[in-house]
Amino acid sequence: MKAASRFQTLPSRHELLSHDHQEKPLNMSCSADLAPHLGNVSAAEYICNKFTDSDLAINNTYLLFSAYFVFMMQCGFAMLCAGAVRKKNTNNIMLVNVMDAVAGAISYYLFGFAFAFGQPSNKFIGKRFFALKDIPSESTYLDYSNFLYQWAFAIAAAGISSGSLAERTRFSACLIYSIFFTGFVYPVLSHWYWSPYGWANPYRAPGALLFSSGVIDFAGSGVVHMAGGIAGFWGALIEGPRRGRFFDGRIYYKPKGHNPALLLLGAWGNLADICNGILGGFAAITSGCSVVEPWAAIICGIVSALVLIWLNMLSERFGFDDPLEAAQLYGGCGTWGLLFTSLFAKKKFVNEVYGERPGGRPYGLYMGGGGKLFAAHIVAVLVNIGWVSATMAPLFLILKYLNLLRVSEEEEISDMNWSRFGGSAYPLDDDGIELF
Amino acid sequence: MKAASRFQTLPSRHELLSHDHQEKPLNMSCSADLAPHLGNVSAAEYICNKFTDSDLAINNTYLLFSAYFVFMMQCGFAMLCAGAVRKKNTNNIMLVNVMDAVAGAISYYLFGFAFAFGQPSNKFIGKRFFALKDIPSESTYLDYSNFLYQWAFAIAAAGISSGSLAERTRFSACLIYSIFFTGFVYPVLSHWYWSPYGWANPYRAPGALLFSSGVIDFAGSGVVHMAGGIAGFWGALIEGPRRGRFFDGRIYYKPKGHNPALLLLGAWGNLADICNGILGGFAAITSGCSVVEPWAAIICGIVSALVLIWLNMLSERFGFDDPLEAAQLYGGCGTWGLLFTSLFAKKKFVNEVYGERPGGRPYGLYMGGGGKLFAAHIVAVLVNIGWVSATMAPLFLILKYLNLLRVSEEEEISDMNWSRFGGSAYPLDDDGIELF
Amino acid sequence: MKAASRFQTLPSRHELLSHDHQEKPLNMSCSADLAPHLGNVSAAEYICNKFTDSDLAINNTYLLFSAYFVFMMQCGFAMLCAGAVRKKNTNNIMLVNVMDAVAGAISYYLFGFAFAFGQPSNKFIGKRFFALKDIPSESTYLDYSNFLYQWAFAIAAAGISSGSLAERTRFSACLIYSIFFTGFVYPVLSHWYWSPYGWANPYRAPGALLFSSGVIDFAGSGVVHMAGGIAGFWGALIEGPRRGRFFDGRIYYKPKGHNPALLLLGAWGNLADICNGILGGFAAITSGCSVVEPWAAIICGIVSALVLIWLNMLSERFGFDDPLEAAQLYGGCGTWGLLFTSLFAKKKFVNEVYGERPGGRPYGLYMGGGGKLFAAHIVAVLVNIGWVSATMAPLFLILKYLNLLRVSEEEEISDMNWSRFGGSAYPLDDDGIELF
Repeated sequence: MKAASRFQTLPSRHELLSHDHQEKPLNMSCSADLAPHLGNVSAAEYICNKFTDSDLAINNTYLLFSAYFVFMMQCGFAMLCAGAVRKKNTNNIMLVNVMDAVAGAISYYLFGFAFAFGQPSNKFIGKRFFALKDIPSESTYLDYSNFLYQWAFAIAAAGISSGSLAERTRFSACLIYSIFFTGFVYPVLSHWYWSPYGWANPYRAPGALLFSSGVIDFAGSGVVHMAGGIAGFWGALIEGPRRGRFFDGRIYYKPKGHNPALLLLGAWGNLADICNGILGGFAAITSGCSVVEPWAAIICGIVSALVLIWLNMLSERFGFDDPLEAAQLYGGCGTWGLLFTSLFAKKKFVNEVYGERPGGRPYGLYMGGGGKLFAAHIVAVLVNIGWVSATMAPLFLILKYLNLLRVSEEEEISDMNWSRFGGSAYPLDDDGIELF
Repeated sequence: MKAASRFQTLPSRHELLSHDHQEKPLNMSCSADLAPHLGNVSAAEYICNKFTDSDLAINNTYLLFSAYFVFMMQCGFAMLCAGAVRKKNTNNIMLVNVMDAVAGAISYYLFGFAFAFGQPSNKFIGKRFFALKDIPSESTYLDYSNFLYQWAFAIAAAGISSGSLAERTRFSACLIYSIFFTGFVYPVLSHWYWSPYGWANPYRAPGALLFSSGVIDFAGSGVVHMAGGIAGFWGALIEGPRRGRFFDGRIYYKPKGHNPALLLLGAWGNLADICNGILGGFAAITSGCSVVEPWAAIICGIVSALVLIWLNMLSERFGFDDPLEAAQLYGGCGTWGLLFTSLFAKKKFVNEVYGERPGGRPYGLYMGGGGKLFAAHIVAVLVNIGWVSATMAPLFLILKYLNLLRVSEEEEISDMNWSRFGGSAYPLDDDGIELF
Repeated sequence: MKAASRFQTLPSRHELLSHDHQEKPLNMSCSADLAPHLGNVSAAEYICNKFTDSDLAINNTYLLFSAYFVFMMQCGFAMLCAGAVRKKNTNNIMLVNVMDAVAGAISYYLFGFAFAFGQPSNKFIGKRFFALKDIPSESTYLDYSNFLYQWAFAIAAAGISSGSLAERTRFSACLIYSIFFTGFVYPVLSHWYWSPYGWANPYRAPGALLFSSGVIDFAGSGVVHMAGGIAGFWGALIEGPRRGRFFDGRIYYKPKGHNPALLLLGAWGNLADICNGILGGFAAITSGCSVVEPWAAIICGIVSALVLIWLNMLSERFGFDDPLEAAQLYGGCGTWGLLFTSLFAKKKFVNEVYGERPGGRPYGLYMGGGGKLFAAHIVAVLVNIGWVSATMAPLFLILKYLNLLRVSEEEEISDMNWSRFGGSAYPLDDDGIELF
């Protein structure tokens, strides 16, 4: 069985965006190869153009439906949040998730996509395609379906951090950090790893690869999960725990989510612990899913659960309160995922997915592929932590200083749904609501 | 970037159904073009047949999964309804949504699809393919996947009107109007705009185009949303407001939905207002999504929200009660969507998607494309209102006259779930239900 | 209109796995056919290789997204369960559904897929590809996407039986039977019908077909639904009814599900009866959906509802208690589905989907196709009942004998969520839980 065999036919997201493909139409090599066999250039070009059309149709179909499913993941995450917070905060958390999607769409459209995938660009940030302007019409692989797909990932990352801030944060603060994160912090990170121009991209020309390897973060353990988790960590740390969560250095009270069916709908998941354990495994395998064997994925999942348990113990010890355990889960297991890939990536799969390089390319340390991939991923972990911390921690500190971050004590203790949004989430529980 | 670039490879729904494609197999032009290059007719035909096979496979895959997602939209709408109505009416509204899908399937299978897409036909109504009979076997683009796709739209339109009638309508009345709407009213409307034979179809031959343009209702702001909204308007108007909603000309009581998580699951969305604002934007952009720039879509969404707010104010003023605001939302924003398209359709995209015409074809008035598209869309708005009103208003009046429309006062005031269906939606709230 | 026209281009699941395709690459017949036309072997091979690439990309896309949707069906089934059981058992039943997916993934990965689709194999059980090892790299149609797809079916079958055992079974017993069922019982059954080596496969060579026909169980009325239903039947029978369900031979109490919105979300569906009637129709049509006319499908659905009503009456009479009616619904309607196919399969469709055979192949008895298909399906029904009963009944008896099957009386009467998982499903209902 081949690893991710679709890559042989379907260009991956990375390939779709790669410089080479932009410079020459996809059918170039086809007609160059076919014409000599056929002894007929014009017929070869006609046939190869038809193949290009088919490939584009297949790629667009694949990308578009994948985008739908990634967006459904965000919908699932909203349900997870709704089920995990206390009943009184249901409205609030759901509104924040809706806002992430809506404000994130504007922000990512105006700035984010350009910072991430604007071409040509330097190694560090994209600088064209603001508001999707000036995208060359021959770049069909930079089409709306790709924007939709990338946007769905961007709001998923933003959604993660909103989980960390649940049950005590002002709506306006959520709006501000969501726009900043979706429009700037996350796109820059995704440029580094996923844009063909990014300094850590594993598709770069041989001489330009970080440690001759680049970083393998196929679907975003680092770009999406770590970024969201670290942002959430700083938010939850700077805001402090929910009132009543800790008292005099001891765990005083652990609020519980109110609706396990919604929890499960969000994540197939006491139930919340199992649910989060599964999600932690997902966050971790995201990086290396294109280059590891199934048995390695099982190891990945088991270690993820241990990482999550350990980080949750640390959190309680240090009085860190993240209502959805998002920092521990996405930050911690995402970090583990990047390391895992650098340990268990298989030579054959790395070559198939990312292309062979003269002299061979590094693969997993544990698989005998040397330390270069591991070194590249250590750099990625440090850089991710550094970048997100350097941008998001100051933002949260400023919001706190301006007294924009946290709702008032009265609001937090009373029903947040009522005070903020003029309505209870479940009005029927209030005897006065139902007329009949 | 190209507008809807998939249209270059994948025939759109309209093209799939167009007269030209029916008359000659898809590979005709391919082999006619390739044979001279190749100097070999039989090889060209063999190769082109393979391309036709691929195209059909891609189209069927695309259409089938799109149908699944449109059906999931109906599932989401049921959740929206369940979350928006009062707890006691949950069972009722969900049963109506199930019935829409089931009875609609039979009705659309027996009559609806034939009225909409029966071929050949006149400009006004299809007259073949009843119960899917006699569909020519070479018409692979009129396959089951297309039926499934069209059925999913039909029940979505019917579902909209059931929202307007929530919390006070007899189940039997819902059954009757649903069958009539799905089997006749909606199909005739979709024939006019979406069948290649319809008088308003934008793919017709140059001389046969309405105002040299035809109506651009890509995914149904007019056909689906307006139709459902206008039907709902007449139902809600003729039936009158829910008891207690208005008193002595003033708003006496505004019932609230009981489950915001289900609301959100239906639509990502006080929360109900935001949710409905988003849905209004979706209803409006549906018409022109294939021919407008993203910045225009933002204008479309902002105006949609204003249209909805204004219509809701009007509704309260005139004592019109639609529990899901479906008439205002789908009727109002759907109408705005048709007008929006005729203002902002871009020349390049219109030509790409609907085909250039000798002498050029009209596009958006605001974009400098003249008034012909606008005129065509004004006609479409008036005709839609006229057709749905002329068919559905009499039906609701007859049902009212026969005393079949509304549940009794006792049933409406007491628990409708209990009286109609012999069970409470949430039996656990009743102390007597749980044995243990 | 053609039946399941995609089969002309897209190999079905069966064809994807068939022996012929494994032995020769897909493009063999293409280049053998094209080369003479073209008078050029190397050009023909180049072109045909490109077609093979396209076909694989389309097939993988189709299979992968289908797998997602089948998995969503399992998600829907979990919601159905959550909505159908009493509130106190919500956590329990959801945890069991999660466990089915997770433990089933390990079990199916290690053993199940090998028993089902290991190649080459004998007629009765596969014996290679344990832990996905040694799958030949040229077998791209045995790729991960196919594993995912097959796994999603396996856990769907296991999920059905967990419905029968709801509200009274120990979690450890669920874990044991789920692993055994997903890893052994179900895979062997699917080998017989769906592996190209299976004795009942309808794609076998002419002389090797059961009754010259093989069994047509396209998507699993027998393999998935009957198997899950019969397993559930034995579990529910051996475990006995929930306490208080029957008393002194009469129906004493019928517990009700607690959340109709979740019910609907699971199945679009007194509401539970309607919901189950629809599901029964789905279970039945699954077998013959590729070979029957739409009008026959309507007959199939009507009879399914009657079968379900009759079996539910029988169940009450004999004091059989299945909280989700899973045995009656999936077992009963699945059996009817197999028989229905053997009555109504249409000659043209059978030949299109399963390939013509010298001397013609049998089709539906009612359609004039003789008794051979009917005979083959009678055998299938008996063999399915025999195999699942012979494996699962002893397992449940052993679990009962070892006192591992049922929770204690105290746990069953009190709140199972609390006792088993240390938490209430809806903690907010408990006044002592919410601090603020």
